Amino acid sequence: MSSAEAPQDPKNKSIRVQMEALIRRKQLEITKGLESVEDDPNVVFKVDEWSRGEGMGGGRSMVIGGGKTFEKGGVNISIVHGDLSPTAIAAMKHDHKNIATEQNKSTGCKFFACGLSMVIHPKNPHCPTTHLNYRYFETWDAEGNPQCWWFGGGADLTPFYLYEEDAKNFHQKHKDALDKHDKSLYPKYKKWCDEYFTITHRNEMRGIGGIFFDDMDDRDPQEILKIVEDCFDAFLPSYVPIIAKRKDSPFTEEEKKWQLIRRGRYVEFNLIYDRGTQFGLRTPGSRVESILMSLPEYASWVYCHEPEKGSREAKLLEATRNPVDWV
Amino acid sequence: MSSAEAPQDPKNKSIRVQMEALIRRKQLEITKGLESVEDDPNVVFKVDEWSRGEGMGGGRSMVIGGGKTFEKGGVNISIVHGDLSPTAIAAMKHDHKNIATEQNKSTGCKFFACGLSMVIHPKNPHCPTTHLNYRYFETWDAEGNPQCWWFGGGADLTPFYLYEEDAKNFHQKHKDALDKHDKSLYPKYKKWCDEYFTITHRNEMRGIGGIFFDDMDDRDPQEILKIVEDCFDAFLPSYVPIIAKRKDSPFTEEEKKWQLIRRGRYVEFNLIYDRGTQFGLRTPGSRVESILMSLPEYASWVYCHEPEKGSREAKLLEATRNPVDWV
Repeated sequence: MSSAEAPQDPKNKSIRVQMEALIRRKQLEITKGLESVEDDPNVVFKVDEWSRGEGMGGGRSMVIGGGKTFEKGGVNISIVHGDLSPTAIAAMKHDHKNIATEQNKSTGCKFFACGLSMVIHPKNPHCPTTHLNYRYFETWDAEGNPQCWWFGGGADLTPFYLYEEDAKNFHQKHKDALDKHDKSLYPKYKKWCDEYFTITHRNEMRGIGGIFFDDMDDRDPQEILKIVEDCFDAFLPSYVPIIAKRKDSPFTEEEKKWQLIRRGRYVEFNLIYDRGTQFGLRTPGSRVESILMSLPEYASWVYCHEPEKGSREAKLLEATRNPVDWV
Repeated sequence: MSSAEAPQDPKNKSIRVQMEALIRRKQLEITKGLESVEDDPNVVFKVDEWSRGEGMGGGRSMVIGGGKTFEKGGVNISIVHGDLSPTAIAAMKHDHKNIATEQNKSTGCKFFACGLSMVIHPKNPHCPTTHLNYRYFETWDAEGNPQCWWFGGGADLTPFYLYEEDAKNFHQKHKDALDKHDKSLYPKYKKWCDEYFTITHRNEMRGIGGIFFDDMDDRDPQEILKIVEDCFDAFLPSYVPIIAKRKDSPFTEEEKKWQLIRRGRYVEFNLIYDRGTQFGLRTPGSRVESILMSLPEYASWVYCHEPEKGSREAKLLEATRNPVDWV
């Protein structure tokens, strides 16, 4: 897009500034909402600020751990900017073709990126793990002219035991948020989510879906920002009631073991396939602990583990192998 | 190399046939040697044969788990052959430049590969994890003419607590095996091992070294086969005495926790950086469970974990950050 079309809102605040304000607000709301179902009153999110170095931005991690409800989790925001090398542009062009202008390929460009990333691993195997991420990206050329921008993100659910009502609630809330804007979005983003979170080498998904989109720049950025805000707002009602209902469910040692095996698959997806993790770990100066906060406190690998036919574990696995339209 | 120089031994057995016989023999010897220090008499290596499908080879996994000494481990051999596509050749040429002939780049070629891979995760945190792998690779063109071949492999040690005498023993035995043939090999292969097993994003090594080499074709293949055999033979005396000495050491819950955190790093290396794992998981028809048998039964991730200054854990970490010349 040309400089004249650079994302601005009617009050003349740039999308960049609005998105940063949004993620800062949502970080506080989400952590507060999650704390409301943490049964140990001494366990709250701890704040950890970090910087990429002079003039390159940084972030604010909020982490929780060792709770009665939540074993481990983090709600992190990052607001970073700086230079993108021609090599970095080459690596990104597969997913974001607009970035690879002839000029950028030879001289690089400036970028701004901000986003909120969350992963929550509850303790009880009847409570699902969840992940959410919404982000905004923008570039300019050497003369300071805006070049390209996009939004991306989504939220997805990774249960260890399948409760259809939970799957339906999670998806319905996100569908409602998207439907308000455009009814074609949910079906597309649900499918994208199932495809993106696939553990290819196992031919199964990490979880049971949600929504996912990337490279979104097909309408007024102000409208996309509102879609993102509504998706953010869908999260707590999509997830907190599930945790409230399941956190005190009795569970066996076998069920805990199954949770750890599924968490092993979570680790496999994140370390092998997740583009954000791959890109982050390969970016010099990135904050490894914030990227890897997505990993669970415990994970397990058992050689050739396959649940018994007809078991509840097999039913979950079935839903990760054949995506279900929950709503 | 030309057809006339295709690896043959004086008794006219091809290197391929000899290497396959060697890994079959060593699989039995190594599993027997390890079983000698397993304290639960009911826990032995279990055999699991698998096939890649008609005429493409297969393998024989031998796995152990749930022992008093060994929590999880596998000693696997695979003997596979078939077609390498131009895409696969392009992916391999970075590490093995001889494979990328003009003809192969356009039409592909036939290949044969065999090797033994082992990872052993003992239970006691004072016992080190270890890994060993030796492999042979060969290609022919469409007319059946041998094209290129190489050996690769090594063995390395991943302790959770540092015992210098253990580190010295492991390295000395492997150094002796290499020195018999060529005194320039050990220093080169020790350095290569430290470099290869680096977890780049953490700026630390997976363990404390050993030996590693790849793409070895710089001398008579019959001589390299003998080097590989001597390295194989170095393994049991380099490792079994350590296990015998440490398997009954008392340990605390904290020490066990530290072991699991270090195993998390092991998982990070294997899933993100290990070339064999990456290549295997991306190869259609590969056997995922045999590739991922390298992962521990349990691993743990703790946000921003850093051992106390001056502690034994800090001492171990120090040795993974600054490679030591043990012998």
